[in-house]
Amino acid sequence: MRKFPSGFMIGWSQAGFQSEMGLPGSEDPNSDWFAWVHDEENIATGRVSGDLPENGPAYWFNFRSFHENAKKMGMNVVRLGIEWSRLFPNDPGISSSDDHVSALEKLDRSVNAAALHHYREILADLKHMGFHVILNLYHWTMPLWLHDPISVRKGRIAGPAIGWLDSFAVKQFAFFCVFSAKALDDLVDEYSTMNEPNVVYSSAYASPGWPPGYLSFDLSKRARENMIKAHAAAYDMLKSVTSKPVGIIYANASFTPLRKEDERAVGLAETAERWSFLDPLVGLSELQAGEEVSRRLDWIGVNYYSRTMVRLQGDAYRSVPGYGYACERDSISLDGRPTSDVGWEFYPDGLRDVLQKYWARYRVPLYVTENGIADDGDYIRPYYLVSHISSTLEAAESGVDVRGYLHWSLADNYEWSSGFRPRFGLLRVDYSNKSLNWTPSALVLMEIAGAGGIPSELEHLNSIPPTHQLRRG
Amino acid sequence: MRKFPSGFMIGWSQAGFQSEMGLPGSEDPNSDWFAWVHDEENIATGRVSGDLPENGPAYWFNFRSFHENAKKMGMNVVRLGIEWSRLFPNDPGISSSDDHVSALEKLDRSVNAAALHHYREILADLKHMGFHVILNLYHWTMPLWLHDPISVRKGRIAGPAIGWLDSFAVKQFAFFCVFSAKALDDLVDEYSTMNEPNVVYSSAYASPGWPPGYLSFDLSKRARENMIKAHAAAYDMLKSVTSKPVGIIYANASFTPLRKEDERAVGLAETAERWSFLDPLVGLSELQAGEEVSRRLDWIGVNYYSRTMVRLQGDAYRSVPGYGYACERDSISLDGRPTSDVGWEFYPDGLRDVLQKYWARYRVPLYVTENGIADDGDYIRPYYLVSHISSTLEAAESGVDVRGYLHWSLADNYEWSSGFRPRFGLLRVDYSNKSLNWTPSALVLMEIAGAGGIPSELEHLNSIPPTHQLRRG
Amino acid sequence: MRKFPSGFMIGWSQAGFQSEMGLPGSEDPNSDWFAWVHDEENIATGRVSGDLPENGPAYWFNFRSFHENAKKMGMNVVRLGIEWSRLFPNDPGISSSDDHVSALEKLDRSVNAAALHHYREILADLKHMGFHVILNLYHWTMPLWLHDPISVRKGRIAGPAIGWLDSFAVKQFAFFCVFSAKALDDLVDEYSTMNEPNVVYSSAYASPGWPPGYLSFDLSKRARENMIKAHAAAYDMLKSVTSKPVGIIYANASFTPLRKEDERAVGLAETAERWSFLDPLVGLSELQAGEEVSRRLDWIGVNYYSRTMVRLQGDAYRSVPGYGYACERDSISLDGRPTSDVGWEFYPDGLRDVLQKYWARYRVPLYVTENGIADDGDYIRPYYLVSHISSTLEAAESGVDVRGYLHWSLADNYEWSSGFRPRFGLLRVDYSNKSLNWTPSALVLMEIAGAGGIPSELEHLNSIPPTHQLRRG
Amino acid sequence: MRKFPSGFMIGWSQAGFQSEMGLPGSEDPNSDWFAWVHDEENIATGRVSGDLPENGPAYWFNFRSFHENAKKMGMNVVRLGIEWSRLFPNDPGISSSDDHVSALEKLDRSVNAAALHHYREILADLKHMGFHVILNLYHWTMPLWLHDPISVRKGRIAGPAIGWLDSFAVKQFAFFCVFSAKALDDLVDEYSTMNEPNVVYSSAYASPGWPPGYLSFDLSKRARENMIKAHAAAYDMLKSVTSKPVGIIYANASFTPLRKEDERAVGLAETAERWSFLDPLVGLSELQAGEEVSRRLDWIGVNYYSRTMVRLQGDAYRSVPGYGYACERDSISLDGRPTSDVGWEFYPDGLRDVLQKYWARYRVPLYVTENGIADDGDYIRPYYLVSHISSTLEAAESGVDVRGYLHWSLADNYEWSSGFRPRFGLLRVDYSNKSLNWTPSALVLMEIAGAGGIPSELEHLNSIPPTHQLRRG
Repeated sequence: MRKFPSGFMIGWSQAGFQSEMGLPGSEDPNSDWFAWVHDEENIATGRVSGDLPENGPAYWFNFRSFHENAKKMGMNVVRLGIEWSRLFPNDPGISSSDDHVSALEKLDRSVNAAALHHYREILADLKHMGFHVILNLYHWTMPLWLHDPISVRKGRIAGPAIGWLDSFAVKQFAFFCVFSAKALDDLVDEYSTMNEPNVVYSSAYASPGWPPGYLSFDLSKRARENMIKAHAAAYDMLKSVTSKPVGIIYANASFTPLRKEDERAVGLAETAERWSFLDPLVGLSELQAGEEVSRRLDWIGVNYYSRTMVRLQGDAYRSVPGYGYACERDSISLDGRPTSDVGWEFYPDGLRDVLQKYWARYRVPLYVTENGIADDGDYIRPYYLVSHISSTLEAAESGVDVRGYLHWSLADNYEWSSGFRPRFGLLRVDYSNKSLNWTPSALVLMEIAGAGGIPSELEHLNSIPPTHQLRRG
Repeated sequence: MRKFPSGFMIGWSQAGFQSEMGLPGSEDPNSDWFAWVHDEENIATGRVSGDLPENGPAYWFNFRSFHENAKKMGMNVVRLGIEWSRLFPNDPGISSSDDHVSALEKLDRSVNAAALHHYREILADLKHMGFHVILNLYHWTMPLWLHDPISVRKGRIAGPAIGWLDSFAVKQFAFFCVFSAKALDDLVDEYSTMNEPNVVYSSAYASPGWPPGYLSFDLSKRARENMIKAHAAAYDMLKSVTSKPVGIIYANASFTPLRKEDERAVGLAETAERWSFLDPLVGLSELQAGEEVSRRLDWIGVNYYSRTMVRLQGDAYRSVPGYGYACERDSISLDGRPTSDVGWEFYPDGLRDVLQKYWARYRVPLYVTENGIADDGDYIRPYYLVSHISSTLEAAESGVDVRGYLHWSLADNYEWSSGFRPRFGLLRVDYSNKSLNWTPSALVLMEIAGAGGIPSELEHLNSIPPTHQLRRG
Repeated sequence: MRKFPSGFMIGWSQAGFQSEMGLPGSEDPNSDWFAWVHDEENIATGRVSGDLPENGPAYWFNFRSFHENAKKMGMNVVRLGIEWSRLFPNDPGISSSDDHVSALEKLDRSVNAAALHHYREILADLKHMGFHVILNLYHWTMPLWLHDPISVRKGRIAGPAIGWLDSFAVKQFAFFCVFSAKALDDLVDEYSTMNEPNVVYSSAYASPGWPPGYLSFDLSKRARENMIKAHAAAYDMLKSVTSKPVGIIYANASFTPLRKEDERAVGLAETAERWSFLDPLVGLSELQAGEEVSRRLDWIGVNYYSRTMVRLQGDAYRSVPGYGYACERDSISLDGRPTSDVGWEFYPDGLRDVLQKYWARYRVPLYVTENGIADDGDYIRPYYLVSHISSTLEAAESGVDVRGYLHWSLADNYEWSSGFRPRFGLLRVDYSNKSLNWTPSALVLMEIAGAGGIPSELEHLNSIPPTHQLRRG
Repeated sequence: MRKFPSGFMIGWSQAGFQSEMGLPGSEDPNSDWFAWVHDEENIATGRVSGDLPENGPAYWFNFRSFHENAKKMGMNVVRLGIEWSRLFPNDPGISSSDDHVSALEKLDRSVNAAALHHYREILADLKHMGFHVILNLYHWTMPLWLHDPISVRKGRIAGPAIGWLDSFAVKQFAFFCVFSAKALDDLVDEYSTMNEPNVVYSSAYASPGWPPGYLSFDLSKRARENMIKAHAAAYDMLKSVTSKPVGIIYANASFTPLRKEDERAVGLAETAERWSFLDPLVGLSELQAGEEVSRRLDWIGVNYYSRTMVRLQGDAYRSVPGYGYACERDSISLDGRPTSDVGWEFYPDGLRDVLQKYWARYRVPLYVTENGIADDGDYIRPYYLVSHISSTLEAAESGVDVRGYLHWSLADNYEWSSGFRPRFGLLRVDYSNKSLNWTPSALVLMEIAGAGGIPSELEHLNSIPPTHQLRRG
């Protein structure tokens, strides 16, 4: 049996927008994403699925059932978030001239007290049941008053409510963070400022299905810089009110070279897609403006699902279709590996690779903060689960300080523009009655959590799932 | 939660030839099937896989590990067999003039005492662990001295060693049964004379891959009659030495009509393939010869895997390809249902149908004595398991006296002419080191056995597995 | 044998941008589409294929080889276009105050005389070989000075060079048409103002892969109105210099109802996607502005590839995926029909349906101006060809005045944002040496053209191609 | 363009049993194969398809239509056979003591004169139209009086009517040959004694679907030796009455090694499956009995469809599944090549290989006497046709004396135990009305025959057909 390192935690991650809504009274119509997925033009042109988040798993009211199932499964850590738009459905009126004190006064006057109270109930229940709580402060949604994505999509890229395109969002975010920490710190063990800022600044300005659905490398760059600054500003503000660790959660591919001669492409890709955002935050590089953002990372959350196969093209790197995230869904990759319901290749070695590279570069504590698979039938997930936990343990055995594995996710939820079709849950949600049902994978995880490691009778699941039974392309 | 009826048992079935061999010293080279699967001509022409049973799961020596895993899984019943060829590797010399007493004397002199002792050890271990033991006395293998399948395949269909083609086998079998019961009765709870005689007399004389690989309806009929008589003779002999129930285990399809107008084909098929063999044994019909074979069934074992779709053709019924047992493997049936690694359609309703029809006709206690799926990845098996146990419980709820569900099988084993490729085990066998590894389905079964029914959190697995991820034809 | 109606013509259609380029000196870098498919951001984000039109089939220099092959195949009609950006690479400086005379003077001064001369050579060769020539004046490309698609994509939707979003384009187009007709009328038999304006105004403002890649129903509507007016203005201008028929070419689906109760959805779809654009041009309805555009259609060109399955949703209609244009590529539709390399379902009956509906509504002469299939292996095309010609003949037999069948296309060409992957040619282009190679379908067409109908020995190809050999989704 | 060598002929091959029957009056119920495919047990157990040859293409009455279509396609050679069972439905009573003269007298008395006359009509029509006629005297069917396959299948392998198992068949065959030659010699250009004796002696005694459906290597060997002797005896007899060349037609795989180290397996396979039968006939080796059979081959007919991938296993060779003849049907081979409706891999290089090896070993004139593909949709056949003719021409260019290419077959026909499902015809037979319909491939062949070679515009079909559109396993 392969044992966990001492103190290693097992749990799950989830996001407010994806899981909270689902029963009358749970709706939050005040976020950019809510507007985006309801927009008629987006629906008609297939940019979004047409599924609506208000038909979701209803964590807002059913949180106790979630927690009990997680407990029964042996989990002891959770990373979840609070929705900015729930606490501040209306513009609190902070202006650029406001200082710390006046901004917090405005937030105090403007906060939705009932929502804040409800979040405290949720967190208190978790603490009461013994969970280690990681509170994440931004998971892709902004209040509409700060970001009107339909207007931006239609070409208005200046003026108010343009989200991360406006440097004013930096300050807004930092104030929101400090306000939240003051209100919830007694129920929190660690903070994350943001989940996957890299997905936001890349998808949002390159993919039609993401708010604001805009194609522009320039705008993407602008958003990226504002997000780096926003993390640093939030870090500083948080440190003024709490002594708890503050980290960030980042989305990762493991980059693998197509051929020997493409090895250089791996470094290029890592720098472009990973280090360039994070290096400034630890002082390994500077932002162009020379602004000071370094030494602002107490820990890093590693989200990992698959790899990206890369090759060199001249001096640049290119992603190679047919591997990693660039596969057909429910298919077999060019490397003979199954792909998920969203077309992501089964590639567990990449998780170890990413953890080792983070550790080698930054030497800060790590969590696996997301890892999971869209697998309607729960066919591949038992293999995925065991193989990726095993890959995490291999990293730990090689000296990496990785402190927990948080699966994405405990239950099925609303997968952004793809709606409810992709099912990532260990618990299968019956959306008609919101019941939580156990997949075989949930039983597998319970065995692992209970044993404090991977029992040898389950080691055989640490392998590539047989492909002869699966769909080909 | 759907509860088991009171006293309902959960367990597994297995066969000696398929599971015993696997480590040095465990070989039994004295059976017809052993000769058949080793025959060079059979291998070269693809009649058999070329896999060899001596590389199997090694139950002969590892039986304790099997039993412990079954116990841990919550099982409490087993149906297993003893190998005629192990106890009597050589012809004991019984002649047609031998009576009961002289025959048993010859068997006593001729039995392989070490093998008998070993079987007692196995059964004692089971009883010691609290298992209800159903001993099956014939599971398709005969000693070579009674059946030389290669000679028969080459055209010698008269003379000695022609197996069930010779009415002398009837007597031989009855003596073997009574000998075994005398030697093992203290370790046995119930007896079955034979497993699936219908597969033997149909496949053997109609399919090239089965010993003796002979195509002849006449010979099939002759074998069939001898097997009916053999059951009756064995029943009588057994009753002279034991008071325990004696049943038979039969292979079943649920017959479903292609269209409304084919409903009559269902009855035709059931009569031809099921009732015609069993009716004489309960006195509902007579053998041509008028021989008395009736009132010889204390219970019936129902083996069920899938259905047969039938249609009328003139006054006869025909099987319709693309459904039930007649599908392509790892595929989707014409009814949109997954098929297994051996091409059998997922059709759980048929199990309830078959149980109800047995009960309506014979009113004797029933067991599900085989039910399972060849599923290398364990993708479909969790659904298969829950759906078929559920179907069994539906039969019980409708009044059928069904007393247990015995899965085929606890562990992967040697699938006759198909070799090791089809994997039917809840435990995955690593043939390189004979280790037994838990599939997710094994965890599912443990939950069910532990709960004494199907917990509502697992009820969602009582459904057709999603097909969009699976291979199409 | 099924005979053609008297005078019925057989030929092909092609577009300048898709076929002309391909050898040094043939490039036309001055169109919006050229800029669009070369844009780095479009390529990097997968909006366009990365294939470049300057590697195309090289009709610009090899037109004689195209013509000879068409002749050999028995063709006698062609529809092709001239590229606005070739004749007017620079802004001729027409202002809104210019009248007819001054505008033509500016065009005369500004035209690329060498390009005009080359087009005359091409057309003269066609006329010399006896082809009936239909000249189309707009096939989706505009000069860059009139439409800068990258700027528009980045949000500039006012000011100069915004293409059809600017009503000034109406006048520019009309002047371009009359200039072209004056210069080429002796070599032309009929005119089409535009090819598939409906694809332009819908795809351009709804699909990310089309210039300007903009999502806005408002902008789509604006473009649509300007195109209706542009046709009418061009019609009037053309009539001032030529007596030849002036028509328009329109893209069509045949709309079929999913269930009986969806029949009303068919009418809704036809009105929204077909009649609403064309009705004003024949006086069956009016533009909102009350502007006079009616009685401007001498003939209609019908482009047809597949159907759209529709169903009712409330009072609206919706397209149903899995049928018609909404299938997976190289697959089988939900109706059991093959789909093409671009995912379009084989549905020949729809062509007859569309022709009959046009005839019933407008009573003007019709041509099938596009019909063909992306079929790399030429597997399905023989069936497609025979079935759709047959469907055309059925329309003719029912009284429709359809005068010819023009296949898309004679040779493989550049399929817009999809690049060279989809191969629509009867002749397979070897892009490495620009050779034109005969597919089996080309031989089939030669037989048909030579026989003046479909010989009975080829009638068997008027059927759904067998699907058991083809890929399933 | 790739030209034919001077005098090179193009045509087709066909067999009496597969093509003759099909309209009332055309039945021949007196052959072993007729009995075999009508046998109820064979049908019920799936050994044969259940399709019946009397529903076939009806060449017996429609031969003129066959000939006209072939002529139109540019063919000028045919290989066809006469049915022994038609000429001699009853045992002529030849005994082992009969000499040449008395045997022929008995045959004269016993022949079905009407059938003989009808064969003369067919052959005369062919000669009249200018075809070069190769008459084949045995294509797998024997009169029932000489071979009762059902009895043999049931185990009677001695006594009368056991076919090639009886050495008496040697003499019977030789007398039948000389009789036929005397009666038809004026209408024949060349003779073949037998078609594919190797398929008969291997399949018949190894495959369940072939008469007599017997598994025995010993019997196979006995049949093989009798067939060698039968050829030699027939050769001698024929030479006594005709000066025309007498050859044999043999079934071939091209053997290719799986890995470098398997090259030795190629030679082993060629010797076992090809040279060992033919070497004695040219004097390169002797039969065990030392009987004189050498110098009995004036030419060889090469039948070729696909390859066999081989590997070494110890000192023996083994066929490797997933390649060549051992593929799944309508699939892609492990080498990425399409497979046919009967699962044979597209592998044209093998035809050149086989021709070159024959020439190197025997230096006698060669014909390609069979080559074609079961391809219901005619998707792959255009590629197959061009690629294999091209491969033939490559052999010719390298010095091989190959004199013609005879496609299997002009029209669809009855494919033995597989029935009508596999369609090998250039002409698609509509069995409901017996009409002959042209596939695209027929047009391709007409182009090639007309051009006297492969026109460069069709050279692109000399390639592996694209597989992305085709079914995968």
